[in-house]
Amino acid sequence: MCGLFGIYGNKTSANITYLGLYALQHRGQESAGIVVSDEKEFKFHKGMGLVSDVFSQEKLNSLTGNIAIGHLRYSTTGASVIENAQPFVANFSSGQIAIAHNGNLTNTKFLREKLESDGSIFQTTMDSEIIIHLISKSKKNNLIEKIIDSLNQVRGAYSLLFLVKDKIIAVRDPNGFRPLWLGKLNDSIVFASETCAFDIIQAEAIRELEPGEIVVVDKSGLNSIKPFKKNKNSFCIFEHIYFARPDSNIFGGSVYFTRKQLGRNLAKEHPVDADIVLPIPDSGNYAALGFSEESKIPFEIGIIRNHYIGRTFIQPFQSSRELGVKLKLNPVKELLKGKKIVIVEDSIVRGTTSRLRVNTLRKAGAKEIHMRVSCPPIKFPCHYGIDFPTKEELVASNHSIEEIANLIGVDSLKYLSLEGLLDSMPVLGENFCTACFDGNYPVEIYD
Amino acid sequence: MCGLFGIYGNKTSANITYLGLYALQHRGQESAGIVVSDEKEFKFHKGMGLVSDVFSQEKLNSLTGNIAIGHLRYSTTGASVIENAQPFVANFSSGQIAIAHNGNLTNTKFLREKLESDGSIFQTTMDSEIIIHLISKSKKNNLIEKIIDSLNQVRGAYSLLFLVKDKIIAVRDPNGFRPLWLGKLNDSIVFASETCAFDIIQAEAIRELEPGEIVVVDKSGLNSIKPFKKNKNSFCIFEHIYFARPDSNIFGGSVYFTRKQLGRNLAKEHPVDADIVLPIPDSGNYAALGFSEESKIPFEIGIIRNHYIGRTFIQPFQSSRELGVKLKLNPVKELLKGKKIVIVEDSIVRGTTSRLRVNTLRKAGAKEIHMRVSCPPIKFPCHYGIDFPTKEELVASNHSIEEIANLIGVDSLKYLSLEGLLDSMPVLGENFCTACFDGNYPVEIYD
Amino acid sequence: MCGLFGIYGNKTSANITYLGLYALQHRGQESAGIVVSDEKEFKFHKGMGLVSDVFSQEKLNSLTGNIAIGHLRYSTTGASVIENAQPFVANFSSGQIAIAHNGNLTNTKFLREKLESDGSIFQTTMDSEIIIHLISKSKKNNLIEKIIDSLNQVRGAYSLLFLVKDKIIAVRDPNGFRPLWLGKLNDSIVFASETCAFDIIQAEAIRELEPGEIVVVDKSGLNSIKPFKKNKNSFCIFEHIYFARPDSNIFGGSVYFTRKQLGRNLAKEHPVDADIVLPIPDSGNYAALGFSEESKIPFEIGIIRNHYIGRTFIQPFQSSRELGVKLKLNPVKELLKGKKIVIVEDSIVRGTTSRLRVNTLRKAGAKEIHMRVSCPPIKFPCHYGIDFPTKEELVASNHSIEEIANLIGVDSLKYLSLEGLLDSMPVLGENFCTACFDGNYPVEIYD
Amino acid sequence: MCGLFGIYGNKTSANITYLGLYALQHRGQESAGIVVSDEKEFKFHKGMGLVSDVFSQEKLNSLTGNIAIGHLRYSTTGASVIENAQPFVANFSSGQIAIAHNGNLTNTKFLREKLESDGSIFQTTMDSEIIIHLISKSKKNNLIEKIIDSLNQVRGAYSLLFLVKDKIIAVRDPNGFRPLWLGKLNDSIVFASETCAFDIIQAEAIRELEPGEIVVVDKSGLNSIKPFKKNKNSFCIFEHIYFARPDSNIFGGSVYFTRKQLGRNLAKEHPVDADIVLPIPDSGNYAALGFSEESKIPFEIGIIRNHYIGRTFIQPFQSSRELGVKLKLNPVKELLKGKKIVIVEDSIVRGTTSRLRVNTLRKAGAKEIHMRVSCPPIKFPCHYGIDFPTKEELVASNHSIEEIANLIGVDSLKYLSLEGLLDSMPVLGENFCTACFDGNYPVEIYD
Repeated sequence: MCGLFGIYGNKTSANITYLGLYALQHRGQESAGIVVSDEKEFKFHKGMGLVSDVFSQEKLNSLTGNIAIGHLRYSTTGASVIENAQPFVANFSSGQIAIAHNGNLTNTKFLREKLESDGSIFQTTMDSEIIIHLISKSKKNNLIEKIIDSLNQVRGAYSLLFLVKDKIIAVRDPNGFRPLWLGKLNDSIVFASETCAFDIIQAEAIRELEPGEIVVVDKSGLNSIKPFKKNKNSFCIFEHIYFARPDSNIFGGSVYFTRKQLGRNLAKEHPVDADIVLPIPDSGNYAALGFSEESKIPFEIGIIRNHYIGRTFIQPFQSSRELGVKLKLNPVKELLKGKKIVIVEDSIVRGTTSRLRVNTLRKAGAKEIHMRVSCPPIKFPCHYGIDFPTKEELVASNHSIEEIANLIGVDSLKYLSLEGLLDSMPVLGENFCTACFDGNYPVEIYD
Repeated sequence: MCGLFGIYGNKTSANITYLGLYALQHRGQESAGIVVSDEKEFKFHKGMGLVSDVFSQEKLNSLTGNIAIGHLRYSTTGASVIENAQPFVANFSSGQIAIAHNGNLTNTKFLREKLESDGSIFQTTMDSEIIIHLISKSKKNNLIEKIIDSLNQVRGAYSLLFLVKDKIIAVRDPNGFRPLWLGKLNDSIVFASETCAFDIIQAEAIRELEPGEIVVVDKSGLNSIKPFKKNKNSFCIFEHIYFARPDSNIFGGSVYFTRKQLGRNLAKEHPVDADIVLPIPDSGNYAALGFSEESKIPFEIGIIRNHYIGRTFIQPFQSSRELGVKLKLNPVKELLKGKKIVIVEDSIVRGTTSRLRVNTLRKAGAKEIHMRVSCPPIKFPCHYGIDFPTKEELVASNHSIEEIANLIGVDSLKYLSLEGLLDSMPVLGENFCTACFDGNYPVEIYD
Repeated sequence: MCGLFGIYGNKTSANITYLGLYALQHRGQESAGIVVSDEKEFKFHKGMGLVSDVFSQEKLNSLTGNIAIGHLRYSTTGASVIENAQPFVANFSSGQIAIAHNGNLTNTKFLREKLESDGSIFQTTMDSEIIIHLISKSKKNNLIEKIIDSLNQVRGAYSLLFLVKDKIIAVRDPNGFRPLWLGKLNDSIVFASETCAFDIIQAEAIRELEPGEIVVVDKSGLNSIKPFKKNKNSFCIFEHIYFARPDSNIFGGSVYFTRKQLGRNLAKEHPVDADIVLPIPDSGNYAALGFSEESKIPFEIGIIRNHYIGRTFIQPFQSSRELGVKLKLNPVKELLKGKKIVIVEDSIVRGTTSRLRVNTLRKAGAKEIHMRVSCPPIKFPCHYGIDFPTKEELVASNHSIEEIANLIGVDSLKYLSLEGLLDSMPVLGENFCTACFDGNYPVEIYD
Repeated sequence: MCGLFGIYGNKTSANITYLGLYALQHRGQESAGIVVSDEKEFKFHKGMGLVSDVFSQEKLNSLTGNIAIGHLRYSTTGASVIENAQPFVANFSSGQIAIAHNGNLTNTKFLREKLESDGSIFQTTMDSEIIIHLISKSKKNNLIEKIIDSLNQVRGAYSLLFLVKDKIIAVRDPNGFRPLWLGKLNDSIVFASETCAFDIIQAEAIRELEPGEIVVVDKSGLNSIKPFKKNKNSFCIFEHIYFARPDSNIFGGSVYFTRKQLGRNLAKEHPVDADIVLPIPDSGNYAALGFSEESKIPFEIGIIRNHYIGRTFIQPFQSSRELGVKLKLNPVKELLKGKKIVIVEDSIVRGTTSRLRVNTLRKAGAKEIHMRVSCPPIKFPCHYGIDFPTKEELVASNHSIEEIANLIGVDSLKYLSLEGLLDSMPVLGENFCTACFDGNYPVEIYD
């Protein structure tokens, strides 16, 4: 996954982009980058790590210009190397261009081979470089047409921000897999993956880009076009379940409300006789709260996060995953001793982390441990940008729920149904991609 | 404030001390240090910053030895310089000695002037150096007697860990201001400021040191002596209100339970007509939960923490404190719009942060904002180790509660009473120091 | 300018390349890079600064493979950014390719515009990227043919090392502007810009590549081809005057001997009545020695280099260039007091440094200062790789020798004649490019 | 060895001290430190490494004050740790004091044990800390008397700079082992180990402190006292042979002239039939020049220094000392082939480096290699500050000259006689300590 931010028409564009990326840090911790244009030329800086590690105030001050785009990269497939940090910047016949991309294309292998056989050279393994090559090779007359021409050749998921000398071009793919918002900060136009980035800079959220929409901002103002053939909407449902921040609105509604509703539906579908409901902080907080409200079982924040864990990966000790889990989360023993507890997880991927957590809770004295998961079993990999592992590693792909319960070591394990999931969403269920649960991939996988 | 950890009799003593300090990181973020002894000589490393920044695995590997003590320093009075990082290590006639200190002495000025007039030289501004000088100058026959002789001359708050070639000596002052625990990890003896440090290394908590107790661990085993005149107990009540981790037990009971009880008592004392209860995460979580349970007003985790904020101080932007608050905590607007809300704070010191938070909630659409504080107004500075500012800066020292409510911008503001506070504690209220609320300082302030 | 090193067939190829670059450090201090191939794929590392700053032993150990090429970049035209560090690495239809380039092309603008209009995108401002694009676009059947096809389109100066999966291809342009040597280290084949890089690794220097020669090394051994139309030789005479190390052989002879002969010829052409001959260390040492031998005026190493100056640029103080000069070189006052001195400079570019040095010598007490320069006045910029400034900044381009003497503040100033210069060279003068002195550019400047 | 610099009465005292230390860098590369006083309090910074690595302009700017002292530490005995970096700074009854020390005391063990038994604690293993303890314990009435009282108790070699709030106190021990100069920079008073530090800041050298002299500089001006019993002078002769910079004056004369005279005397004592004289650059340059002038054998700078070697210790490769030597110095093969050469070394300590160099010259083709050493055989360790190894490691302590010649691999080896050495000095030979050659230690070694 990745995070995008852009701003047009602000003297402190690099500073504001830094703040926007800061609020979107959960969308990608591998690398961060900002490109600015002063309407003459680009300046940019990229680096590995968190946005706060990559940028110093001195560095930001050197990025002068009134148009900027920024990117956060998540450690997905592809080497974790500085060359792959975005935005990708290149020169072509029309001058400089930068691209920031959220999502995964599904026909990159085909396109890359075609381009290479035609004499193109590549410096990265990123989808984004392919898009720029296609633009550069397009015979269309102007940049927007070239972009449309290029995107007509790619398949898959893409929310994009392009920067050229004097404009930002924002694009959301025809299925709308990934979110992309348009906002306003005084006289400036802003773009961001989620609305929480607008809150931090006190910008006003105007609306999400529509699937298939292209928005161009330049001196002449804001122009929207919809040049692509209309597809079925395929919003990524996992953004609402886990990925997006709870204080964001995406795909038509509040993530916080969605998650509480997931918990309520889960309690309705799978009631349990227990003394307390425990969330796995912080991602499980909201569903657990909904579960508690619906079930009337008291809610206790009985697993304590180490506030400082985030600061560093304790590399030396990660060999022991159990220690890693313990460093992050420690249960309040007094609370658990002899109790029947329900823990609410947002999802189970490999199952290994859940097993370690359950083991810790058991050692802390819990008498019965019931796990409730606020989505259905994840059985299929994602080809549109979520970093799930292969089917072999997805525990629900090869095990029955009962087997998983045994593996994890819980007294009972229940998943929310697909109906219960879709019912919790802010818009009709048919708008969402649920491929990770049911294997129905809305866009063909060519590679 | 500061954090202490020690271990006797373990080949990986530096690694375990690192983990112990990691769990105690909330007690001090300014500097970290570890000293180990292989029963022949010391090796040590200290640095500014978090324990995870100061120590690499390589550095830990170089600290070979089976006895270790570690220290975390909080940015209190005294220059924030590497010289003041602890443990303080020195040579004297009996060989090497290291000291780690939690608490503040109240007659340092007197002692230092006396020592200097007698020809002593000082390299730091720390209390701890004074204690070592007194030990070195003592005419007593052995180290333990020298330590007792030295501590008989100091006044104030001190939990101490001494390391010499072949032993650890742990001390808690006669009033017991600061916590200090004794535990067991297989065949090793461990010490820590809070029990959460034992959880992380899967050690067993045996008991708290008693006020005035000295515990010596060496080849001959564990010996306890109580050489000091018995004082009244003066446990720091603010440890339970705010400072300690909720998953720790200190001063006779679970911090988590205490904080929930504070919230219940607060709800009983100061009921309010509201739609939702909001904690200030994470420190206000537990009292808010208690408040919600008692008042039946729904609990909502509607202020979202940025998980990555901890990683870096956003120095460049701290001029704008408002931005700083916003970067850390962002409210869920949809939840607040048009609502009457209660926010539960653990304490108000200067009032500035509360004002900014309230302002943010107001902008997010809250109709009424009622603040409930889970302790009485803080009117007096602490001389025993908590880093409160001077009376001039303590808002409750110069303003009525009504004035504070106006400053902060809330519709109502209520504090928990001293009785309600003491009633929530795990042991009788008379065992606690409440000087910050009532000005009754249990140990004289000489400086 | 730049430095090249390559090795084929050695398990420690990265380590040896590091050492080779170390010996060539004088050819480029801006950036350093090494690419290795294990005959399957590349690993590489590049960074700003000296080779010893860019590479740690750990980094070198990670560069496993038995074929390697390395590059040092001098701060010439083009931004000093990490993107421009070489070797340039790219993927194209035939796999991975890396290029290291010493020299400047003279038709890059034309080629780049052509490539861009044809849809190519560029990520750097380096000549080298153009060459790779041309190779990738070539319709020829194999890599060597593609390389020849590509180089037939470029004009200017280039010594090149290409690395592909299983071979190194070394090229020297038809005019032979820049040096490039072939050597042998046990069973490995090595390439380097100068022979001093062979000495450090105890390799044997076999021969210089001939102008227009391509040498391919792979499993089948060493193959040489000469596919280009024969041009007149145009060896860079400034390599012998200043750039190359005195312990290297290039263009047919020892640089040390050449420089001593320059000094002898200078003494013959421009005798002077003086007490001592002083070199500007270390570059002026050899000509000064020759001057002293011919003139019988005693040689004194009376200007002392600070051995540590190289370690860091004293940025803070560089505003004061005078201080910069003083930090580097300090005269022995006792030696100069009341003396008539001759100082031998290798060349004068802007004249500013000479002026400062003369001023320092004057303050140290010298009675008369005569400057002798071991080459003719530099009047024309170099388009083939030496980083001279524009004509406006070349002092000899706009001033008579008398005016320069006044600017610099010497009692007399004499330059070696072009005849005296050519006479000192190890091969016939007609083999050299002397464009910086006479403006006769042997290859057309298209850009 | 160590380097000292101090300045009184200059607003940019830290900057000037930085430059002074820069010029003295050859006297110590292990650590660097600067302490400044603004006549109220101290600010200081110390670090491991070169002065240019330890100090940034930002760091220097933070060191505001008009009085400063600085120190460079050489890696001698005692751990190479930051705690041992100087100046040593402490507080005592009269306020803050800092000390910078060049030389070694010879009764530290005795003094330290006495102080510890009296209750003093130590934080370093430096002589300097002992001096400060003695000052702090002195019962004398004022600081100067306390310093005299303290120094009356120490034995050995010391040039010292003390800094207190409002003054600098400079001291040279009664034997005058180490140099210490007094100078003037406009209205400021400066101190430095060597005059080359004055040149860099364009200060005027006034005079060397006399052995046993104390100079105090404060608001009242400059005061000199000579409170110690007069001893015989014992100037360190090795400063002239090797340690000091050739552009410095110390112990009454120019180091450059001394070294040339050493070479002349060497040529007179030990003539040789040879084709060329080669110096080991740069330290052997001056004696080799003198040797050439006297012997009429041509001087050739035929061993080339890598200018960049200084920047980093090539740790990874130091296992191979031969490589280390080669990286630093490379001979010009063309010059040596078939020649009879004389190489002039300043001194032979262990003999290992000489052996490697000779081996390199032999491989480069030299027919005969004759080594001439510009001092007598070093047979005895130094207890006054030069970092010679023990007798076991001093090759001349256990081997005849013939044996050394064999070990090193030269065709002949000759040392300058003690008479020839003393004859070259700028003042009468009886003023020098020659203990390393003859074992006559002028001050008793107590430890």
